[in-house]
Amino acid sequence: MNKKLKPMLSSALIVGILAMSATSLAQQAVKPENLIKWRQSAFQVLAWNTGRIKVSLDGQYNKDEVIKAANAIAAISKSGLGGLFVAGTEQGKGWHDTSAKPELFKDAKHFDELNASFSKEANELAVVADAGDPVAVKTQFAKLGKTCKSCHDDFRAKD
Amino acid sequence: MNKKLKPMLSSALIVGILAMSATSLAQQAVKPENLIKWRQSAFQVLAWNTGRIKVSLDGQYNKDEVIKAANAIAAISKSGLGGLFVAGTEQGKGWHDTSAKPELFKDAKHFDELNASFSKEANELAVVADAGDPVAVKTQFAKLGKTCKSCHDDFRAKD
Repeated sequence: MNKKLKPMLSSALIVGILAMSATSLAQQAVKPENLIKWRQSAFQVLAWNTGRIKVSLDGQYNKDEVIKAANAIAAISKSGLGGLFVAGTEQGKGWHDTSAKPELFKDAKHFDELNASFSKEANELAVVADAGDPVAVKTQFAKLGKTCKSCHDDFRAKD
Repeated sequence: MNKKLKPMLSSALIVGILAMSATSLAQQAVKPENLIKWRQSAFQVLAWNTGRIKVSLDGQYNKDEVIKAANAIAAISKSGLGGLFVAGTEQGKGWHDTSAKPELFKDAKHFDELNASFSKEANELAVVADAGDPVAVKTQFAKLGKTCKSCHDDFRAKD
């Protein structure tokens, strides 16, 4: 390679790398199996917390419990889950083989849209939980559930 | 059993169960291995998010990334992790054998105190992250790390 061209290309490469988000850099620094493990863990934490809300709605309502659970769900919905579904993690094993469909990795825009809907309803659930009316929480919890289902239908493989 | 005594005992049992918090009910309705899986998942989500903050502090600072991560950590710290370490889950396997020391289950008060310290520093980190000064975030992140270590020293078995 031309000696003058090489440093120029290197500089261009560095600029290119710096232009990438820290998220991408972070993800490239970790093993794919860790990213898969983390996303599987995030969805388990969502399962724990949606389960707690369901128990409250089906039995004796515990306002404090529902608030904690709704806040955890809202924070995870806004944490940037998309960053855990990057190229190179289409297949592989975290705690178990990934359940993500190949389609997810081909349509980040649609994933982000579904995540935004999920986050919108999760935020609203946190607001409603804070107010403490079980009937309103039940209605909003159902709306949240629809956003979960939409994303699972499109992007999660059947067991 | 005496036929009259049996319904009385059953009623007493039901009253006793209803007097328990919804949290306990929820926990008793789920299998111990699920509680262990959920707590292991919650700590993995913390690992994901502390890792993201570390990447930002060690490399190019990404304010948005740090805010998302700090908010997720704060919400999990306030989610009621103690509810995942209940009697009957001292031993067992979630994603893997539990790493919790037996001492944890004998001193819920100390666990709650450590959780409160963790939550206090996590909340403060979320505030500092929002302000966006990397130096202040680094200082607060170190304070948070100390609360993680305190709890691990007391309650997490060595690998």
